[in-house]
Amino acid sequence: MTDSPTTTSPPPLRIGVLLFPGFQALDVFGPLDVLNVLSWSTNTPSPTSPSPTPPISLALLSTTLTPISTLPPSLPNALSQSILPTATLTSSPPLDVLLIPGGWGTRAPLPEHIEYIRSVYPSLKYLLTVCTGGKLAARAGVLDGKRATTNKNDWEGVVRDAPGVEWVREARWVVDKSTAKGDSGVEVWSSAGVSAGVDLMFAWVESIWGEEVAGRVERVLEFRRWREGERDPFV
Amino acid sequence: MTDSPTTTSPPPLRIGVLLFPGFQALDVFGPLDVLNVLSWSTNTPSPTSPSPTPPISLALLSTTLTPISTLPPSLPNALSQSILPTATLTSSPPLDVLLIPGGWGTRAPLPEHIEYIRSVYPSLKYLLTVCTGGKLAARAGVLDGKRATTNKNDWEGVVRDAPGVEWVREARWVVDKSTAKGDSGVEVWSSAGVSAGVDLMFAWVESIWGEEVAGRVERVLEFRRWREGERDPFV
Repeated sequence: MTDSPTTTSPPPLRIGVLLFPGFQALDVFGPLDVLNVLSWSTNTPSPTSPSPTPPISLALLSTTLTPISTLPPSLPNALSQSILPTATLTSSPPLDVLLIPGGWGTRAPLPEHIEYIRSVYPSLKYLLTVCTGGKLAARAGVLDGKRATTNKNDWEGVVRDAPGVEWVREARWVVDKSTAKGDSGVEVWSSAGVSAGVDLMFAWVESIWGEEVAGRVERVLEFRRWREGERDPFV
Repeated sequence: MTDSPTTTSPPPLRIGVLLFPGFQALDVFGPLDVLNVLSWSTNTPSPTSPSPTPPISLALLSTTLTPISTLPPSLPNALSQSILPTATLTSSPPLDVLLIPGGWGTRAPLPEHIEYIRSVYPSLKYLLTVCTGGKLAARAGVLDGKRATTNKNDWEGVVRDAPGVEWVREARWVVDKSTAKGDSGVEVWSSAGVSAGVDLMFAWVESIWGEEVAGRVERVLEFRRWREGERDPFV
């Protein structure tokens, strides 16, 4: 029996991004634009060069399908942008990866979002948090016993409210591959504030698709990566 | 006669962003998140600290008010996101600043966008282009005789199609304050590819609101600025 190369292609990596009112725009669109450019090649295999790496799918998750705004609820005169979710928390497709951005909006209780994180976490392969997105993951309890970092502007507040997490202050990003909390090996990748999410996403992409692919995306975005997760220029 | 401090506040700086199908997400949301964070202070003056710098307004411009997607038209399987415009090209509010992003979408003719650039340009104080956004400005003729740069991945094509522009290859961004083309001193700020747009926006913000304000935004975004416009790590 001979299989054609295409039948042995890896399954798509299903990525979701959790949106809430007052999310930080760059927390979302920094990492996402790395994935956008990555998808130009991974999602477009050619007959002569079938993709050796998994293609990706993306769901933008919110409580409803109504456009969702970056406007910080407590700053009504701030500039903001609105984007379209593609799925609701109750109609979310199965996910391998959940990315949680931060922002002013994380100061709200967000009970539906917290419950969603708690319920989806055990089925994930990767949890990625950017900035104060780590606060939401911590609030859901899924970071307890894990090493993680978060932004440096709101550091004391985040750490005080989540004493069960092994917070790493001196880090641009942190990877925890332990199996604490009885999960079956969810890798938790957490970054420092806002722009650090792009460095985290590049490191994550490199870990799955390899250095050459990450380097290609880097050149398209003309992005100057910070390559040392354990060092942080903003500490 | 004694005026209260608020009556002497400067007028808002009116900023527009030109959107088209297949714009590059980070070309827009990198610079915009600098402005978002800036607006937390400039658009929220307190009685004890009236804003010494102009507040800002933002229009997201497209041909219609329909959500507009980053999907490259020729890459239908790519990942993408859709955002909401706030004004159309024909109902655009008066602008002081126009930001033109780049992306795959610039390969389309975009006649309405080109005509819009041409018509709004004489009334601007600042034109900001990111990445291949410079190609659209060049196509509208408003860069002729001006110094400008663009991304390094599509360099040859952009330069070949716009021989009237003084293209600067070795640059992260370029500022042209000349009054070529008979305009009454529109400052043209152009950046290299994608992420360079954030460096450009920081430099522009610093030129208007000062170093202290730019530094505060920098720390919120934990963004590592590239401060040398005339040098380019991606040449």
